[in-house]
Amino acid sequence: VSEQTAFISFLSDYGRRDEFVGVCHGVMARRCPRAHVIDITHEIPRHDLTVGALTLRDSVRFLPAGIHLAIVDPGVGASGAEQRRAVALRCRHEDRWLVGPDNGLLAPAAQALGGVAQALDIAASRERLTPVSATFHGRDVFAPVAAALADGAIPESVGEPLDPGALRNLTLPQAELSGDTLHAHVLSIDRFGNVALDATPAQLHQLGLAVSPQASIEAPPRRSSAIYAVTFADVAAGAMLIYEDSRGMAALAVNEGSAAHEMDLRRGDEVIVRLA
Amino acid sequence: VSEQTAFISFLSDYGRRDEFVGVCHGVMARRCPRAHVIDITHEIPRHDLTVGALTLRDSVRFLPAGIHLAIVDPGVGASGAEQRRAVALRCRHEDRWLVGPDNGLLAPAAQALGGVAQALDIAASRERLTPVSATFHGRDVFAPVAAALADGAIPESVGEPLDPGALRNLTLPQAELSGDTLHAHVLSIDRFGNVALDATPAQLHQLGLAVSPQASIEAPPRRSSAIYAVTFADVAAGAMLIYEDSRGMAALAVNEGSAAHEMDLRRGDEVIVRLA
Amino acid sequence: VSEQTAFISFLSDYGRRDEFVGVCHGVMARRCPRAHVIDITHEIPRHDLTVGALTLRDSVRFLPAGIHLAIVDPGVGASGAEQRRAVALRCRHEDRWLVGPDNGLLAPAAQALGGVAQALDIAASRERLTPVSATFHGRDVFAPVAAALADGAIPESVGEPLDPGALRNLTLPQAELSGDTLHAHVLSIDRFGNVALDATPAQLHQLGLAVSPQASIEAPPRRSSAIYAVTFADVAAGAMLIYEDSRGMAALAVNEGSAAHEMDLRRGDEVIVRLA
Repeated sequence: VSEQTAFISFLSDYGRRDEFVGVCHGVMARRCPRAHVIDITHEIPRHDLTVGALTLRDSVRFLPAGIHLAIVDPGVGASGAEQRRAVALRCRHEDRWLVGPDNGLLAPAAQALGGVAQALDIAASRERLTPVSATFHGRDVFAPVAAALADGAIPESVGEPLDPGALRNLTLPQAELSGDTLHAHVLSIDRFGNVALDATPAQLHQLGLAVSPQASIEAPPRRSSAIYAVTFADVAAGAMLIYEDSRGMAALAVNEGSAAHEMDLRRGDEVIVRLA
Repeated sequence: VSEQTAFISFLSDYGRRDEFVGVCHGVMARRCPRAHVIDITHEIPRHDLTVGALTLRDSVRFLPAGIHLAIVDPGVGASGAEQRRAVALRCRHEDRWLVGPDNGLLAPAAQALGGVAQALDIAASRERLTPVSATFHGRDVFAPVAAALADGAIPESVGEPLDPGALRNLTLPQAELSGDTLHAHVLSIDRFGNVALDATPAQLHQLGLAVSPQASIEAPPRRSSAIYAVTFADVAAGAMLIYEDSRGMAALAVNEGSAAHEMDLRRGDEVIVRLA
Repeated sequence: VSEQTAFISFLSDYGRRDEFVGVCHGVMARRCPRAHVIDITHEIPRHDLTVGALTLRDSVRFLPAGIHLAIVDPGVGASGAEQRRAVALRCRHEDRWLVGPDNGLLAPAAQALGGVAQALDIAASRERLTPVSATFHGRDVFAPVAAALADGAIPESVGEPLDPGALRNLTLPQAELSGDTLHAHVLSIDRFGNVALDATPAQLHQLGLAVSPQASIEAPPRRSSAIYAVTFADVAAGAMLIYEDSRGMAALAVNEGSAAHEMDLRRGDEVIVRLA
């Protein structure tokens, strides 16, 4: 076992109001005292697999190689046919591990990391805390397995081999361009009220915004005009822009304001973009 | 002094909006640069000793041995007869230290850790930052003493000996079973709206729910039925269950919903449980 | 390069709801794996340079020597004449570095740390992540430069020399005493509803409160009386006090209550203090 720092990143929908996140940190520190845990965020909207999966996928390339623990787990504790697997997935890129529920949450990140080279079912891992509670597998299954892998445990010792082809996938929303109209949806809204869409910058180009940068934005009953720009300061204070955000997605913002508030947008809402 | 990692866990009602928690981290890093601080939570409701004490008590067994710093301190800065002590308590289990105000906050955790083997009054500790502010003993007294102990300071050098028998206790709420009726109270409500009660799973068994798992839940004027179950997925979406939560307490939840919202419950409210 | 712990403190208005802070932590861990990052707070009100600058200034003396990364950046991504510089500033006290936007945010902390001995323009630093996004310089410029300096990079290698005299300053609000009236303003409101003013304890003394400790507080249309005291417990539950807070500023509080709520105060509001 190396004495180097072992990095574990941690994303969940647990929030920080309760002790859930702190207790998982404690469990990891007990199993791997030299682990360095980086909290990505714990404010994924409750049970929102899409936001969780995209946040994880778009964060991993900025994180050090190691273990990526992610927990958004609406199906925790189900039994029989409803039971979701608990998994650890070794990815091709830098042998990074993803640890979490097999409900699609890990799938886009696995793909971004070159695909799954090795999959383990960890539900009955000998690393788990027993008795396993019915409702807190983060503490009892996922955190201890993540820490064991960070500590250099042999994969075969933490779970049972699993066919990577049997893993659950996740269908991500995707904007559709039909004629001169882009039908997009709100993927997420950040603290500043900036609205990430499920559209790509390439789709904005196809719409013609690179040539004629005046867009019309509709989310009935609201309607606004927006300028296709690089950043907030490219438009006047209070004006709306449509731009490529720092994750690489098309997004709406209002300079020194809130696009979400101005268009009364919530996660999942449809947003129609046209040339003005 | 060992070069090993020194673990300090940290719980408070400071919140993360202000710089209070970060400044305490800074003070600890200055005194013990190799300390690894694990934040349990800083969102204990303001001045709520019961929630703070229970959260600490139920978290310590998942945390690495070391120092447990906890601050919920309605009496900070009082003088004369009103003055509460500042203490460091060495517990029998693994020689773990509890550091915080002597107002009952630490008492349930001390008991869970095998009782107090050594108590110190640290109000005038030579480790404290001077001048000690009147309102921020976390920064000026508790954090530096916690860090000194983590750094291997000799206990006698951080405070004055104190009789463990003189420490303040905390009376915890406890549900009462009278005949076929369980009178319980809301201990805490988590981010998901799950409601922890001051009742034990044993009391649910005494009520007969293990045999006949249909319960009636009353918090006037609200009333609901609930199923005694192991986990959320055991009941239909939108249905209520009564179950043993991950801390080992009786709790109410609504599968894919919020029990707190449905029953309009707040911390301290009475909840009456009967067989349906 | 030393193998010692390298401390980086981190303050921003990013919040913790999104992955911004976690991603910056990841970027720093990749560049300097042994860095120990201390989060001061990430809940500075959006774009509020004054609150950010004062929080940073008043926190640094409690933090270990190292790098202080601070990001409140309303002008991110602007170009041409509007463009603010990105800077790293070596201060005289303990050779600490401040890293962030050159918009005044760092100026009060630099002064508290003995002034700027060396200034670098880091906008085109070879440490930055490329392509630099238009909206997230925390991730792409500030975090990697902070980590490089923590890792022992030679200053000349992370940026271009800059005249410290060219740095932007920040005009801080300051209470004015005219005759028997102190015209103060709300600097910030903490989680407990305690209200920090832009007045000094010396100004309260000049008003005569040290001799006659009854004050009248006005924030039209609200009006209250307050006692000049050392701490909360010096006044009755529900009573208001005016006191020196733990940062050393004059502040209003209500014992076991909220001064902000009682006086309906918001950041920037005027508060008039007189002898009662």
